[in-house]
This record gives sequence, C-alpha cells and structure tokens, in this order.
Amino acid sequence: MNELGLVSWIAARGKGIGDDCAILPGGRGNDLVITTDMMLEAVHFGRADPPALVGNRTLARGLSDIAAMGARPRWCLLSLAVPEWATEAWTKSFYEGLLLLAKQHRTHLVGGDLSHARAAAADIVVIGEAPRGAALLRSGARPGDGIYVSGALGAAGARKYAAAQVEPRLALGRWLRGTASACMDITDGLSLDLHRLCLASRVSAAIDRPLPVAPGATFEHALSAGDDYELLFTAPGRIAARHRGLALTRIGTITRGAPGRIELFGKPHSPRGYDHLAAAKTRRKPR
Amino acid sequence: MNELGLVSWIAARGKGIGDDCAILPGGRGNDLVITTDMMLEAVHFGRADPPALVGNRTLARGLSDIAAMGARPRWCLLSLAVPEWATEAWTKSFYEGLLLLAKQHRTHLVGGDLSHARAAAADIVVIGEAPRGAALLRSGARPGDGIYVSGALGAAGARKYAAAQVEPRLALGRWLRGTASACMDITDGLSLDLHRLCLASRVSAAIDRPLPVAPGATFEHALSAGDDYELLFTAPGRIAARHRGLALTRIGTITRGAPGRIELFGKPHSPRGYDHLAAAKTRRKPR
Repeated sequence: MNELGLVSWIAARGKGIGDDCAILPGGRGNDLVITTDMMLEAVHFGRADPPALVGNRTLARGLSDIAAMGARPRWCLLSLAVPEWATEAWTKSFYEGLLLLAKQHRTHLVGGDLSHARAAAADIVVIGEAPRGAALLRSGARPGDGIYVSGALGAAGARKYAAAQVEPRLALGRWLRGTASACMDITDGLSLDLHRLCLASRVSAAIDRPLPVAPGATFEHALSAGDDYELLFTAPGRIAARHRGLALTRIGTITRGAPGRIELFGKPHSPRGYDHLAAAKTRRKPR
Repeated sequence: MNELGLVSWIAARGKGIGDDCAILPGGRGNDLVITTDMMLEAVHFGRADPPALVGNRTLARGLSDIAAMGARPRWCLLSLAVPEWATEAWTKSFYEGLLLLAKQHRTHLVGGDLSHARAAAADIVVIGEAPRGAALLRSGARPGDGIYVSGALGAAGARKYAAAQVEPRLALGRWLRGTASACMDITDGLSLDLHRLCLASRVSAAIDRPLPVAPGATFEHALSAGDDYELLFTAPGRIAARHRGLALTRIGTITRGAPGRIELFGKPHSPRGYDHLAAAKTRRKPR
C-alpha cells in the first residue's frame, strides 16, 4: 500500500480528513483550523543543519498549511524529542529559530511536550482562525476554473537539500478567500498535489501552459520534486499576475472528467511526486 | 540543564504554558483545551509491543491530559512516522487500536500527518471542550486544601514496562469541575508532579497520609516511578471516597510556604521522578 492508499484507508475511518487543516468551531464568529506536521532527523533534516533553521522550518511547514486554508495563524504547540547528540545550545537555537518566526506571524507558543530520544523528532501543531465558513478547501474546484500557482517551483528539488527556509504564503492565502474556489500548498510536488485537489473536487485538470520553473531547476523538478511550499489554487475569474510582488501564474484549467485525472499538454499524465512511504522503502541513507 | 530547567526556559518564551492542556476560545460558550504528546519507539514502546496497544496508549495519554482539565474530548489528529520495519498489518493495527479508543470516547480523528522513518514516532493531538472558564488548572490550590489522588499508584513502575493500557480518568475529571481547586494527571511520578502543581499554585504541600500503593508496587514506586495516569487534585471541601467505583484517597494538605516545597511525613522532600532529559542521558538501552 502506498501513501495515497494508506491515507484513503485512514480518511475512511476519520471525519472530514482531506484538507491541509481540520476545521473546528471557534469563538467570536470564527472557525479554527488546525494542522500537525512532523520533522524527523535523517528524513527532513540532518545533524549538520543549523538548528535555528530546523526550528524555523518546523513551524514554517505548519504555517504553510494555515496559509493554504486562507487563515490567520494564532497559536502553536511543539512536541520535541531532544536527540541524545544535541547540546543545550542546539536545543535553545532550535527553539529560538522557531520562536522568531512565530513572533513575525504573531503566533503564540502555548504548549507542547518534551522527551528525549536517540534521533530528533519535532511535531508542530498550528492553530489559525478564519471567519466562519470562509476557510479555503481542496474540494471547491469547478470545470472552467483556472489553475494557478504562486512563486516558482522546483528549487528544493534542484538543490536536493530539504532544510532550506520556507516562506509560508500567509498574506496570499488570506487574500484568496472569496476569490479562489480551491486551495492547497504544494508539498509533495505539483503533479501529485494537483491530483489530490482534483480527487477532492471530483474534477479533472489540464496543464497546458508553461510552469514557473525556479532558476536552476528543470521542468521535471517543477512538476514533481516537491518541497515548494507555494500555493496551488483554482479560481473562476481573472486573477492579478502578482500579489504583493509574488508572481501568480496560470498553468491550466479544471475540466469535467474522471476525478483526479490530469492531462499534461494534451497527453494523459500519471501523477507522481514524493510518496513518503515509497521513498522510505527505497531510501537507506538519510538525505 | 534538566527537564524542569528547559521547560521553564521554554515557558518564559511562550504564553500561558504550564497546564496539561492549552486553553483557546471555542464556539457555543465553550473553551477548547488542546494537548500534544509524543510516543517514540525505544523510549515509550518497543517493536515487540502489540501495535493495537501502542495505538491505544498513544491516544490514551492525550485523553489523560484532557481528563486533567475536566474537559470532554472531541477531536484528535495523529502525526505518524511509520517505521521501515513495520508491515502494513502493523500500521493498520496501530490505527485500529487508536480508533477503537477514540470511538469509546466519541472523539473524531480529523487530520494528521504521515511520514516514514527508521524508527516509529507518533504524536497525538487531542482537542476537548469545557464550559468557558471552567477548565481545571494546576494553579488554583490554596493552603488548607486537601490533596487527593485517584486509583492506586506505582503499578507501571513495578512492572518496569511502559506499554500497558492507560485508562484516562475522563468521567472523574468532569466530575471534579467546580469541586477541585487544582488538577493534573500523574505522568512523571507523584513527587515531581505535586512539586509542579505547587509551583504553579505558589504553595507548599505536606504528604502525611498513606499513599494508595498498587498491588506489587512499593511506596517508592508510588511516590516517584511515574506513568500512573491517575489524577492528582486538590479540593477545599470533603470529597467522596469513591467516584463510580474509583478510589479517591486523601494523601495530604496544601500549606503556606515556599512555592513547590514538599514535606513527606514531617521531613523536607526533594521532588524526584521521571526526568526525560536526565533519563535519556543515562539510558543507552531502550526499555
């Protein structure tokens, strides 16, 4: 069973699973959106990575999920397994990197869990707020909607280096509320993530325009390497070419058809990207 | 720096950290309480442990934090790093064990994260609801209050075996709302956890009555071995000796004095219990 298979198996046993965040009733006319995201030593980062960057990235990946829902981040909790090899300075720098980004986005650390293990593991929980019923979902794309991505894709794939800084697209996400029909962040590659969005919306998609390929990256990196943390969204109307200096590029159109089917320049395309389960089975060395 | 030191360092940089759960504004006149708790292979469980029990225990530890706040669990999210050695049957059994307990407590799995790593790691997030302002805190104990524990203590310490079933004291926790002045669950040992409760309430404590020692356990196990998941609470008035068949035992009295100071049968007592950081530094073999 690959990752999509296992996620489907789990989703069938849960409730409302399928978006970047779960939605819960909040106070003051708001919904709360909540996400959890794990960072593991030898999978998502290495011992040699600067701890402040690892801490920053741990929170940034959670904030990217909040951005994808069009919400404003408010609170976070961190479960950290401090590795045996870490010095006190490593642990403090990790927290400082995380807390600096939290402060930039007015997100308060309100709790967590602390343990110790041979290898480091960090699980971030981020909770955001959106006006009731306004959060962006993956399931709203309709035939005829344009398909857009923010920024440029493929940079992380080109670097083959995961622990780079992630810039969560929070301002764009909030701006897309009421404009976009569906939204998610690109974590496992455009190809696989667009397939997921189309499954959730029960539509097909045609990619028929050039992708915004990052400098140094190839078309293949942009299509399927993942770790981009840009927003993938659909919208019925016209969209500005930029939002606060960030490029918004139309790459195709939502079409009527089998849920999840993707055409790439007129040819059927098998969605591919970072399958966490398949990757781990073939990977024996940490990257 | 030991665990108490690091937790203080973190708490000084966060907001409102110090109870078993963080409290957020919820809908319909409720507060939301939220906790996150990590289970790690070779620290909290082993490969030979039945996966359904590990899944059950992962959720039960989170539910115990919800119980300590006097709240009703509603939703959960799970971040799981599936270990390379796990079969598909292992992973499904893990979820089934978790989902069975979730169903018993009407708690919906609403999201999570899935990755793959050499060793298993599971982080549970549980969200509960309590009437606004009614959640139980650690900080409400006052001089003269009785100190109570539920059930019997020391069984896990006597077994030296961590992956046993945890029975979260949810019904008791809700019953204690409006009765208890402070509450927490006993995870790292009565001695250390009572010290924490007294620090939060800025009071001292005198343990001057027999502890409810579990069959096969010693007084020392009951005092400091941890992993009990019983409730430790304080109350100004008289408390029934049982709640739904569960023993409630008075073990002492809250006193005026230096915050966190504990007397054990008239003598000063140095709080001791499971320090996750110190334990990991001296432990080289998984238990």
